[in-house]
Amino acid sequence: MENYLDKIHTPEDLRKLSVDELPKLCEELRQFIIEQTAQHPGHLGSSLGVVELTVAIHYVFDTPNDRLVWDVGHQAYGHKIITGRKEEFSTNRCYNGISGFPRREESEYDAFGTGHSSTSVSAALGMAMAAKMSGDMKRNHIAVIGDGAMTGGMAFEAMNQAAYRDVNMLVILNDNKISIDRSTGAMSKYLLSITASPQYNRFKNRLWNVFTFKTKQSNKITDFFSKLGNGMKGYLLGGSNWFQSLGYRYFGPADGHDVVYLVKTLRALKNLPGLKLLHVLTIKGKGLEMAEQNQTTYHAPGKFDPDTGERIKAETEGLPPKYQDVFGQTILEFACEDEKVVGITPAMATGCSLTIMDKEFPNRVFDVGIAEQHAVTFAAGLAAEKYIPFCNIYSSFLQRGYDQVIHDVALQKLPVIFCIDRAGLVGEDGATHQGVFDLAFLRAIPDLVIASPLNEHELRNMMLTAYRNAQRGGLPFVIRYPRGRGVLADWHNEPEELAIGRGRVLREGERVVVLSLGPLGNNVSTALDELEKEGLRCGHVDLRFLKPLDENLLADLAEKYPVWVTVEDGTEKGGLFSAVAEFLEKRKFTNELRHVAIPDRFIAQGDIPSLYREVGFDVEALKSVISEN
Amino acid sequence: MENYLDKIHTPEDLRKLSVDELPKLCEELRQFIIEQTAQHPGHLGSSLGVVELTVAIHYVFDTPNDRLVWDVGHQAYGHKIITGRKEEFSTNRCYNGISGFPRREESEYDAFGTGHSSTSVSAALGMAMAAKMSGDMKRNHIAVIGDGAMTGGMAFEAMNQAAYRDVNMLVILNDNKISIDRSTGAMSKYLLSITASPQYNRFKNRLWNVFTFKTKQSNKITDFFSKLGNGMKGYLLGGSNWFQSLGYRYFGPADGHDVVYLVKTLRALKNLPGLKLLHVLTIKGKGLEMAEQNQTTYHAPGKFDPDTGERIKAETEGLPPKYQDVFGQTILEFACEDEKVVGITPAMATGCSLTIMDKEFPNRVFDVGIAEQHAVTFAAGLAAEKYIPFCNIYSSFLQRGYDQVIHDVALQKLPVIFCIDRAGLVGEDGATHQGVFDLAFLRAIPDLVIASPLNEHELRNMMLTAYRNAQRGGLPFVIRYPRGRGVLADWHNEPEELAIGRGRVLREGERVVVLSLGPLGNNVSTALDELEKEGLRCGHVDLRFLKPLDENLLADLAEKYPVWVTVEDGTEKGGLFSAVAEFLEKRKFTNELRHVAIPDRFIAQGDIPSLYREVGFDVEALKSVISEN
Repeated sequence: MENYLDKIHTPEDLRKLSVDELPKLCEELRQFIIEQTAQHPGHLGSSLGVVELTVAIHYVFDTPNDRLVWDVGHQAYGHKIITGRKEEFSTNRCYNGISGFPRREESEYDAFGTGHSSTSVSAALGMAMAAKMSGDMKRNHIAVIGDGAMTGGMAFEAMNQAAYRDVNMLVILNDNKISIDRSTGAMSKYLLSITASPQYNRFKNRLWNVFTFKTKQSNKITDFFSKLGNGMKGYLLGGSNWFQSLGYRYFGPADGHDVVYLVKTLRALKNLPGLKLLHVLTIKGKGLEMAEQNQTTYHAPGKFDPDTGERIKAETEGLPPKYQDVFGQTILEFACEDEKVVGITPAMATGCSLTIMDKEFPNRVFDVGIAEQHAVTFAAGLAAEKYIPFCNIYSSFLQRGYDQVIHDVALQKLPVIFCIDRAGLVGEDGATHQGVFDLAFLRAIPDLVIASPLNEHELRNMMLTAYRNAQRGGLPFVIRYPRGRGVLADWHNEPEELAIGRGRVLREGERVVVLSLGPLGNNVSTALDELEKEGLRCGHVDLRFLKPLDENLLADLAEKYPVWVTVEDGTEKGGLFSAVAEFLEKRKFTNELRHVAIPDRFIAQGDIPSLYREVGFDVEALKSVISEN
Repeated sequence: MENYLDKIHTPEDLRKLSVDELPKLCEELRQFIIEQTAQHPGHLGSSLGVVELTVAIHYVFDTPNDRLVWDVGHQAYGHKIITGRKEEFSTNRCYNGISGFPRREESEYDAFGTGHSSTSVSAALGMAMAAKMSGDMKRNHIAVIGDGAMTGGMAFEAMNQAAYRDVNMLVILNDNKISIDRSTGAMSKYLLSITASPQYNRFKNRLWNVFTFKTKQSNKITDFFSKLGNGMKGYLLGGSNWFQSLGYRYFGPADGHDVVYLVKTLRALKNLPGLKLLHVLTIKGKGLEMAEQNQTTYHAPGKFDPDTGERIKAETEGLPPKYQDVFGQTILEFACEDEKVVGITPAMATGCSLTIMDKEFPNRVFDVGIAEQHAVTFAAGLAAEKYIPFCNIYSSFLQRGYDQVIHDVALQKLPVIFCIDRAGLVGEDGATHQGVFDLAFLRAIPDLVIASPLNEHELRNMMLTAYRNAQRGGLPFVIRYPRGRGVLADWHNEPEELAIGRGRVLREGERVVVLSLGPLGNNVSTALDELEKEGLRCGHVDLRFLKPLDENLLADLAEKYPVWVTVEDGTEKGGLFSAVAEFLEKRKFTNELRHVAIPDRFIAQGDIPSLYREVGFDVEALKSVISEN
């Protein structure tokens, strides 16, 4: 039986196929993704959803000359496979392997690197504007963006600027929220076949030139007709008038799993100059029944049986819980006792386990969509009314809400509690997702408490401390903790309130003291145990708080230990190491200071043990830094 | 002649007036704002535009129990004056005076502090949700947001979440982009009188309950009718269908200068539960003819004649230029020679003087609106296509584009050139606008060059260096410089390319060396001149680059000078002081390190000399730190 996929080394090869052969290729590509992802875990659901769209785009457009930008990028597995990375695909998301996201360094077909959401329209618009300035009105620029990513404010900013700019850009809205049902689909296809046909568009294009592109010098008459045109189409299309009102030529909705139809549609759009929006309906997990049925679980299901889709559950019996679940259980406990406790997440309810509270108190859990900026200020608004918002945001995504933490929370001293999940190295998601900057960028902000727990008990203690502090109208409070599991099987302590800004001595020793922040302290403990067996007894302090720093404790340590070692899972520029260096300089102490931290470069994807070895977080490396002379 | 304004100490007093008396009060309030702002410079235009709206809101709504959030907040002068701050208003924006923006600490009528754009809907939604959870469906929540602020992605995120949430919130879109012309105004009023009348809304409300609020459990039939309703109204209203498509009940456009009409409208809306949008048309600068004619200039005109509006120009003959103008002239010079040079600004074309290039090359200057996130990634898209984007963003606003600098620019090593204006203390705009965090939050990012010029020549040198570096495909490059004037009357040097990461010795001395970054180095020079006269000769190094740090030079200095003093106009946590402290610790140098930097607290508004004294940036304070034993 002929196999098409094996012959596709670049999209050039793809374009040699006839349109009729594409459905078979899609089937093979889908199967390949399923088989690969079954063994090498990754983002399954999104990539299955865009198989036909991926093939159709590369078939119709002249990539890499035409620019294709995948928003977020975790749906780009099919794209990677048919652009020369089929052989390497088994290394997807592995240490020294290929990235799970598009990367410019990896392939000329990856026009723009992604990982975070809602950037594609901005990037594609920049490229389209570059082409226009260079006098190239032929090159195409395609942004593929999901309906979730479209809720990110940044996408709106870009959509807003793009409107009425005469650039060659096609925004493909990959709408996988709605399943296609046959009657709607037929009607939609009917509308699409009208609006994407060459005759209609020759006509339409002339109309648009009159009614839309030429109305920059606002002319009441053309304005009126333009609005009338939009209004009429919006009236027919219902929901689409949002795009119409922004000035986009809207096409769709199209069945995103009919590759032949997609090719026909894209060909029509390719020859249509200017700004276009194609609305495509796809099913997340398409082609693997269990994935279609359980879209959230199969977003990134881990290993599974490629035939049945059954997940291969790793043995978790007796393992410590995930930090996220400790967060979820603990906020639920507070929420049960206090109706002022609310939870906020920007589209990560499952990932941060706020779902645990949501089951019991759906009216007090707010998933605001992919909208970090809004999430922070919405929390500030709640705090202004004496509610106690726990705002859970992944470390690397909080970069999106930085101004709001400064301007809306800290400046107003509103006691929002930020639970920062995925802090430190996150592993397979790689450079875009490593949560390594938060200690540095947050420490610069006045009036903010910053804590990181050693283990699950400490997470619960810190959450209680933050909660009580908020009840008293105290300062805003950040608790940052990593992805993955903790270290305590018996995690469910009775939480106690901690003294804010006070560290604790875990062990006494001689000459050398390790100052650790957060769960890396557990590796430090192991290293110190081993060193103790080797005859070296060092001190260990769990600082608990980066800010305020426990300067009294540090002053005591300065007397006792001539050598200090800071250990943190954040960048070496601006975090704990810097804070301690500043302290020593300010106080004119001359203690020697060593540091273990993320070096000043971006850290790519990989399993945590490999990454820990790379940056020196493993026990051996810690021992070596601690024990050197 | 009766004076109403003098009797208004709180909105309670206002509510004792009859509706007929309000136009006179508005006249007085407008006159008071003009007189005050003529002497005490501030944001004139926006505040004049909302006089009637301000009076109408406080007249109709039960502030402070009803919550009123002003977006950006520079239009809130009238609000401040009628909420008990009339007497203090002469201290507006002054050191130890009242803030030019709403502040929670200042008044219970300031429900939420602002300064940056597009936060109001998020904050008001948080408050509205709090009321709802507390079972209070009576309290009103009003966000007043300009049409410019509505383009900020954050506002869209909030609008998107608010839609279909059953909360009591009124978003007032203060649209001052469009002047009212009589015919449109009459038609609009006609539409408004229909849509805001009690009869219509009793009917409408029932319809909306059927067609909109109850369609969460998507029901094809009600969905269809709901869309039909929106579509029909959108069809009639033209541009308004954007809000309709988001699920807002749209009312307007209303004449924002007819206070009697506004009162009537707001009364109707007050009794209408749920989410509403009122579109109000206002004229920026209303009531002062020169301000109406020159809206950009009169946004914040400085001192002027309150009768004629004529600006009282300060004597600038022979003064050094503003840094922003040196930027504007220099980018124009590059743009003349190289068609790849483009300029990008998020709504600050005048403030950053990109207008200078815009006059000559309008097609290569992009004002993307209030959209910092998009501005950065749009620049990255252009850089990916070998264009050379100079992206000019104020320091405190770059906090909004932080993730994009990391994720879209630095991670991809795209040579975007960031010109960061308003870095350091900005003066009268106060805490929300102080550009004091950028050194810290940018230094944490790998693969980013960070420079700050001592003076105008150095700004030009750094711009040339960044430009040549970008031509060679080098690293992304940040140049940060302050608000206001430089120090050189003869600023127009022939720029030279600098060695990236190399500082320069400005003077040699004994024992003490000052390491300065940026224009504060000029105060250091003065301090060292004076100390030299007093017999103390100290060294001075202009580091030029925060990153990469000139470690070779520092190692030399470590041998020669036992005492170091860092001087920077950024926070003491994470910037230059930290970088040098890290260096000393890493290299095990025991030099004494002193520092001059912004202390770890928010710095309020004031004139620069007062603020400099407060934080120890004045010559006397510098001398004292440098010369202490």
